[in-house]
Amino acid sequence: MDDLSQLVNHQVRLAARPNGLPKREDWSFTTAPVVEPDEGGLLVRTLSLSLDPAMRGWMNEGKSYIAPVEIGEVMRAGGVGVVVQSKNPSFAEGDRVTGAPGVQQYWSVGDKQVARGDVSKIDLRAGTVEQWLNVLGMPGMTAYFGLMDVGQPKEGETVVVSGAAGAVGQTVGQLAKIHGCRAVGIAGGPEKCAWVVDELGFDACVDYKAGDVKAGLKEHCPKGVDVYFDNVGGDILDTVLTRINRKARIVICGAISQYNNTGAVKGPANYLSLLVNRARMEGIVVFDYAERFSLAIAEMAGYLKDGRLQSREDVVTGLETFPETLLRLFRGENFGKLILQVATA
Amino acid sequence: MDDLSQLVNHQVRLAARPNGLPKREDWSFTTAPVVEPDEGGLLVRTLSLSLDPAMRGWMNEGKSYIAPVEIGEVMRAGGVGVVVQSKNPSFAEGDRVTGAPGVQQYWSVGDKQVARGDVSKIDLRAGTVEQWLNVLGMPGMTAYFGLMDVGQPKEGETVVVSGAAGAVGQTVGQLAKIHGCRAVGIAGGPEKCAWVVDELGFDACVDYKAGDVKAGLKEHCPKGVDVYFDNVGGDILDTVLTRINRKARIVICGAISQYNNTGAVKGPANYLSLLVNRARMEGIVVFDYAERFSLAIAEMAGYLKDGRLQSREDVVTGLETFPETLLRLFRGENFGKLILQVATA
Repeated sequence: MDDLSQLVNHQVRLAARPNGLPKREDWSFTTAPVVEPDEGGLLVRTLSLSLDPAMRGWMNEGKSYIAPVEIGEVMRAGGVGVVVQSKNPSFAEGDRVTGAPGVQQYWSVGDKQVARGDVSKIDLRAGTVEQWLNVLGMPGMTAYFGLMDVGQPKEGETVVVSGAAGAVGQTVGQLAKIHGCRAVGIAGGPEKCAWVVDELGFDACVDYKAGDVKAGLKEHCPKGVDVYFDNVGGDILDTVLTRINRKARIVICGAISQYNNTGAVKGPANYLSLLVNRARMEGIVVFDYAERFSLAIAEMAGYLKDGRLQSREDVVTGLETFPETLLRLFRGENFGKLILQVATA
Repeated sequence: MDDLSQLVNHQVRLAARPNGLPKREDWSFTTAPVVEPDEGGLLVRTLSLSLDPAMRGWMNEGKSYIAPVEIGEVMRAGGVGVVVQSKNPSFAEGDRVTGAPGVQQYWSVGDKQVARGDVSKIDLRAGTVEQWLNVLGMPGMTAYFGLMDVGQPKEGETVVVSGAAGAVGQTVGQLAKIHGCRAVGIAGGPEKCAWVVDELGFDACVDYKAGDVKAGLKEHCPKGVDVYFDNVGGDILDTVLTRINRKARIVICGAISQYNNTGAVKGPANYLSLLVNRARMEGIVVFDYAERFSLAIAEMAGYLKDGRLQSREDVVTGLETFPETLLRLFRGENFGKLILQVATA
């Protein structure tokens, strides 16, 4: 057991609500003492944090699917940690756990939080720490339930996914292939596109940075689009809407192109394609499926084991790099699931 | 039987594709001789035509849910007519029929058209000619299947409908009441709003011309919006999106505010409310439900008979007024289902 009095908890807090892209001044760096957990609680050292586009939304004021992070609070973040002290019989020191440590080195978990399931043990035989934040974590669950429950792809249908080299997109396309669909990605740059096709086995990938997404979709989706899993919104959503089939399903998972707008969100001007094609556009929030996570994780772990599912993580090291690292998401610079490694053990 | 040689068929044809609101010059007025039907066919005299917002879409070039009207063609229109000559054993002279006569006085129906069901006899005991173009016709069917199949309202839920005093909207709200829902309309002007509440029995109606639709929805939908049946698009759609509940269903039936845009359609900037609320937006095209029309008509005729369903038609007389009369729809001037009466017998 660590000597707690020797430890300092470095933290990143929200200092101001950003206007547009978050700037360095929107964050504050603080330290706090590390304290022994209460009876029933745990002290967890953060190993790796998940950096997600949704974080940008949590920084805004106002109602959303989850409460905003308040000014002065430690920034919310999911992650994996190691139990350094346990006062709870269900956890032992050294256990690897997943939960929402926040952007800090140490996470004090109270007995009530443990009791309501805020922390779960993970099994590193099923996947690495990074995979537990990717395909076995929230991005994987989002891909799984968004595609299977909302998108409802049928064998032989064409599934298109934007952000195809990102955390959610990489798994959406692979799950589509596992279920007998044609999978077409949309990603930025030839390197990502090549990886999506050559390594992940998508049937094609359209490089939106190269220009003509419409022509790319026409070429690679000769039978039209039955399911579109949207992570980006904006012009790409509008373009895909011109290529959908009758009774198509559009899964609204995110809109990363719009999160840092200082003006209004660009709504889909082609939304009347839903009418013409009797199609559906529906939102997904992964937390709604929590009761089914364990089954889905077991299924995904099986695909990882038998090689039908690949995963890629983009790991950056150092808590202090958080502000800059987060911005990589909004510039499309991450290649795979973006992870901030805070400690290795 | 009429002496056909004495008759002239006055017609309105599409002369040019309109830019924005259709102008008088976008139409041409022609005449043609009235000819005896071939074996198996019918000659039908138009009694009343249905004027619908969808007509504006048919005037545009390009793929939609139905082929465009070509330049020089008689303008497409649904309507009710009377059989003046029958060479088909299933129809007798004097039968009232419904179909798509087009904007003309006489409709020659070929044997193949009769065989594929383009013409159906109507029973005036179930409803008047006007009601057969309203609650027992396409507007009623659109309301019925859009609300029941796509909107899927449950008892106690709140249903909001725009264009509430229009053809489809009036029936949507009444069906919602019949199914135990709270029905809130959106309509233009105090007279329409009063009619919707006092005569049709909606729980409330928000006057969009009076200004603050958001405040009106807040007041009249204290439990939020579970189903929104959208006939108008534009700002009203965006406003309702800020008031929807979790798992809400938005039925996209039309977007009359956008049909005469010369620039791009205004997409719903608040579409990410679908994500936050795990809600759905889905298009309806009534023709998909053709196999179930007869059952739905029987149900609606029952509601008319027992007084649970009211209907209102706004009848304008004279084929030659078609260009001006159509524009009333886009100015929100019609009060009830807009019908062009061409002949009375």
